[in-house]
Amino acid sequence: MLNKNDIKLIRSLRLKKYRQKYNKFIVEGEKIIIEALKIESTNIDSLYCTNEFYQENRALVNKKLSNVNIITDKELKQISNLKTANSALALVKIMGNTGTDNLKDAELILYLDDIMDPGNMGTIIRSCDWFGVDALVVSPNSVDIFNPKVIQSSMGSIFRLDIFRYDFGQLQKLLNDKVTYYGTKLEGENIQNITYDFPAVIVIGNESHGISAEISSKTGYNITIPNYNKSTESLNAAIATSIVLYDVKNKLD
Amino acid sequence: MLNKNDIKLIRSLRLKKYRQKYNKFIVEGEKIIIEALKIESTNIDSLYCTNEFYQENRALVNKKLSNVNIITDKELKQISNLKTANSALALVKIMGNTGTDNLKDAELILYLDDIMDPGNMGTIIRSCDWFGVDALVVSPNSVDIFNPKVIQSSMGSIFRLDIFRYDFGQLQKLLNDKVTYYGTKLEGENIQNITYDFPAVIVIGNESHGISAEISSKTGYNITIPNYNKSTESLNAAIATSIVLYDVKNKLD
Repeated sequence: MLNKNDIKLIRSLRLKKYRQKYNKFIVEGEKIIIEALKIESTNIDSLYCTNEFYQENRALVNKKLSNVNIITDKELKQISNLKTANSALALVKIMGNTGTDNLKDAELILYLDDIMDPGNMGTIIRSCDWFGVDALVVSPNSVDIFNPKVIQSSMGSIFRLDIFRYDFGQLQKLLNDKVTYYGTKLEGENIQNITYDFPAVIVIGNESHGISAEISSKTGYNITIPNYNKSTESLNAAIATSIVLYDVKNKLD
Repeated sequence: MLNKNDIKLIRSLRLKKYRQKYNKFIVEGEKIIIEALKIESTNIDSLYCTNEFYQENRALVNKKLSNVNIITDKELKQISNLKTANSALALVKIMGNTGTDNLKDAELILYLDDIMDPGNMGTIIRSCDWFGVDALVVSPNSVDIFNPKVIQSSMGSIFRLDIFRYDFGQLQKLLNDKVTYYGTKLEGENIQNITYDFPAVIVIGNESHGISAEISSKTGYNITIPNYNKSTESLNAAIATSIVLYDVKNKLD
């Protein structure tokens, strides 16, 4: 059963201010919720699911949490953000990152300078997870990583990646001066000629404006992915990020 | 001025069946419309824009078309698909591709086996353009390339890329048997060890199910992007596509 207060709370979590107020975010969809149930460190506050979902994942659900609400498809529709509501929705506690020690020890860090599109943010989180990035740091103006669209497109990687929110100056102060900063730009060094020194911070700019002038002056190297068709203006930000991460790992192998 | 019939027509073009009926699709946003105006081969049927947009792009607009409708912000809102309506919306005629001769002569072809997400499709089109893919072939079940979300995320590349819709069997019949087919799979050969023979067809599978079993049996090589974190399940389809295209071009350089 779903009561009015549940509906009100869950719907409110679509907005950042309520996610911050209640310290919770929404996770939807069978696959990603099963992921969340399996990962020890995720703190699932409550689960709203169909009886079918519950019966199929009973052992996993009961092991992880006590607050399970069996609801109908119709009720799920009332709280879902998805066009076609799935079989489960969970509220997960925002736990924060593992602390700056892990950031200081990281070999490969990705810094996002004002990534605004939630789909891009989620896809970047997924790629970071795939390529084994040690820590993701997002600028304060970047889209909220707990935005439902970010969560959906991260495909469970949101639960596995260490994510921090700092401005670039704060990050630089936290890290020692042996770190090398690599910007990604339309006019930089061809990525094919880049060799990476570690610890490395890869900096990705905003979808429309690229890396801000202030940060630009602080990156030691600027990487460019060659354009094989001069009429195109740019690559999607998540695509450019993932190609650079692939290149870093490829050259390490 | 916007009349009721205009509104009805434009709104109907959100659906594939009406795009096919009227042979037109919607393009929205200042940047992409300016692109469309500049490209000789795009056939813009009509433009709906604010007076500000018109004054700023007068020369370009008048050179390209006569059917210009100056409308208010409020009117634009009535026909826009975007959350925040922009300053212009155009209806563009579906012109089809350049014919199979160009497909037969292509050195690098990308085949999409049931890509369903419009954002992925648009981003893949954008990457094809950037990396100079000669032709994109989409399976009949793939999302319609004239879907408004595809158009938005293609960022103008939709006007520059040669796109065909064939099933894999039809494509094979069209191409000669000197073509090499490369599938992308989770269990294939490490991409680092792949050398490409041309003409090459790169095959990308559906977001959830990968490449269909039928097509799978027909690809000569299977490419895998190494996973540096065994807990992740997969990369986003547009990301995987773009990394493979980058790799193809990188190895040619």
